[in-house]
Amino acid sequence: MSVAGIRKQFYKASQMVSEKVGGAEGTKLDEDFKDLERRADVTSKAVVEVINKTTEYLQPNPAYRAKLSMLNTVSKFRGQLNSPGYPQSEGLLGECMMKYGADMGQHNNFGGALVAIGESMKKLSAIKDSLDIDVKQNFIDPLQGVVEKDIKDIQHHLKKMEGRRLDYDYKKKRQGKIPDEEIRQSLEKFHESKDMAESSMYNLLETDVEQVSQLASLVESLLQYHRNATEILEELSGEITKRVEESRSQPRREYRPKPRQPSFDYGEAEQSNGGYTPTATSPPAYSPAEPCCKALYDFEPENENELGFREGETITLVSYIDENWFEGKLRGKTGYFPNSYVEVIVPL
Amino acid sequence: MSVAGIRKQFYKASQMVSEKVGGAEGTKLDEDFKDLERRADVTSKAVVEVINKTTEYLQPNPAYRAKLSMLNTVSKFRGQLNSPGYPQSEGLLGECMMKYGADMGQHNNFGGALVAIGESMKKLSAIKDSLDIDVKQNFIDPLQGVVEKDIKDIQHHLKKMEGRRLDYDYKKKRQGKIPDEEIRQSLEKFHESKDMAESSMYNLLETDVEQVSQLASLVESLLQYHRNATEILEELSGEITKRVEESRSQPRREYRPKPRQPSFDYGEAEQSNGGYTPTATSPPAYSPAEPCCKALYDFEPENENELGFREGETITLVSYIDENWFEGKLRGKTGYFPNSYVEVIVPL
Repeated sequence: MSVAGIRKQFYKASQMVSEKVGGAEGTKLDEDFKDLERRADVTSKAVVEVINKTTEYLQPNPAYRAKLSMLNTVSKFRGQLNSPGYPQSEGLLGECMMKYGADMGQHNNFGGALVAIGESMKKLSAIKDSLDIDVKQNFIDPLQGVVEKDIKDIQHHLKKMEGRRLDYDYKKKRQGKIPDEEIRQSLEKFHESKDMAESSMYNLLETDVEQVSQLASLVESLLQYHRNATEILEELSGEITKRVEESRSQPRREYRPKPRQPSFDYGEAEQSNGGYTPTATSPPAYSPAEPCCKALYDFEPENENELGFREGETITLVSYIDENWFEGKLRGKTGYFPNSYVEVIVPL
Repeated sequence: MSVAGIRKQFYKASQMVSEKVGGAEGTKLDEDFKDLERRADVTSKAVVEVINKTTEYLQPNPAYRAKLSMLNTVSKFRGQLNSPGYPQSEGLLGECMMKYGADMGQHNNFGGALVAIGESMKKLSAIKDSLDIDVKQNFIDPLQGVVEKDIKDIQHHLKKMEGRRLDYDYKKKRQGKIPDEEIRQSLEKFHESKDMAESSMYNLLETDVEQVSQLASLVESLLQYHRNATEILEELSGEITKRVEESRSQPRREYRPKPRQPSFDYGEAEQSNGGYTPTATSPPAYSPAEPCCKALYDFEPENENELGFREGETITLVSYIDENWFEGKLRGKTGYFPNSYVEVIVPL
């Protein structure tokens, strides 16, 4: 810094101290200027805040937003063209629905409905992406331009003006010690900066026509998004209503336990670990309408009323007792037989 | 724990170790059961994940969600009925727009548009709240019921069944050392639990009609939301289009700097700190069409072509030179006068 520069800095600092600490009054700006400054300030804050809140509105998860911003920086750094998009929550829900729907199988009512809704959620996610891009291009970017050019300009000129004002006030107080011409020049410079500041603030306020157009574009983008979403969901709604009707018309199958497999193979434990699952095709569920069944295994009675039998014998059905037992006739005797020991024979 | 209980725990643990470490094979479950288990598992996971992802979809900001959940707990704890709602990003954007719009004033194009859009964003926020409530009541809560009742039941029965299976397998391996009747009872218990598990899984899978209805209700809520949003935005769009046309039809005011205030009061610095802002009502901007002006202050010429004057004198305007000076006639002489020293008199 030159000697003149250092002196100027000293003047300004000195005047600032006498104003802030000593309570000295500096040159006041006129009311019109203050009003202009206030209006420009409100507009600047409005633009900055609206950009922030719109971004939050479009990309509400701050963690995703931060990650996306980082990834975009990385892909710019690597010269990659396709930067990743924001993970829309519609899309995440849609993917989850499609995955589980596919796992359940389309024949499953719930699974089928999940796949159908999941696909629509993915479509909603795609139009949300378009909304993001539209709003960014036609609303956020132009407003960001205002921040980076117009608002920065204003800040620059106001700062410069304040510096020159301090310089002028310092010199004016020392009138007599400092040549009048220098004071005059100092005031001239202050006025020059004030004009620049005024002009830049005026410029910001006078571009409100553009800002209103940008707001109109935001509204159009939002309207288009919700219209498209309505269309997607109207189609889906018709499909799902059909599915509900279909699934309601299907008879509800009640749970009926399958007949027991032989309890455990006495004396054969070593050979066959687990008396369970001896048949790959398990016997059909027992129904009392069916007339008879064939013993699959030997059965030794343990209690009164139970009848023993050998593998291959045919038992005539009398009635279904509970999930474990049925009443039947064997060799002229009536007694209880275990459901799980028999294969039901359906007459042709 | 009773001695019998401890022994049972020991049996189960022992069997588990011989299976996991020793590679012993336990009783296998039949393929039908495994299939049922697999399907119930997929359905359970689907229900849990869909609840999570739907919540994230409705309330995408995890920080707000956590805070809301905490506040709700607090208000429940205090017995407060009105728990706070999720801060919708539409609402936050709307509030921001309304605040800055009001600060700017309705007469300002940008401000007026901000207020109008802000109000609509608040309406969008309100219908988003309704969507939240609808989806919670008709979709998330019923599914949550499935998780808390049906899925918990299944988990309970499967766990119990596995314990009983281990107990049975342990005893079966020790056949001969353990009475057959005890082994038989153990198998019976295993079967009983297996039936319960099967029944509970079957039940979950067979309630898919309800789950499809709940999905249909989700779709209806979403459709209603987007329809309402479209309506709100259609109305807003009409209003904003009108505002854009209005603001475009207004003549654009170019920046014209105001005339300078007197530069600085030679010799009067101590008395009047800051030669700036001497009048509360600053003089109107100079226009060459106006014929004359009145001096507000004394002016001493400093350069050639400048003419000095006293406060109160009337100067006839000749032409506007630049933002600081005008050409005028005073006492028969033509010369330069500082703009900021005069008040323009507009003839009636």
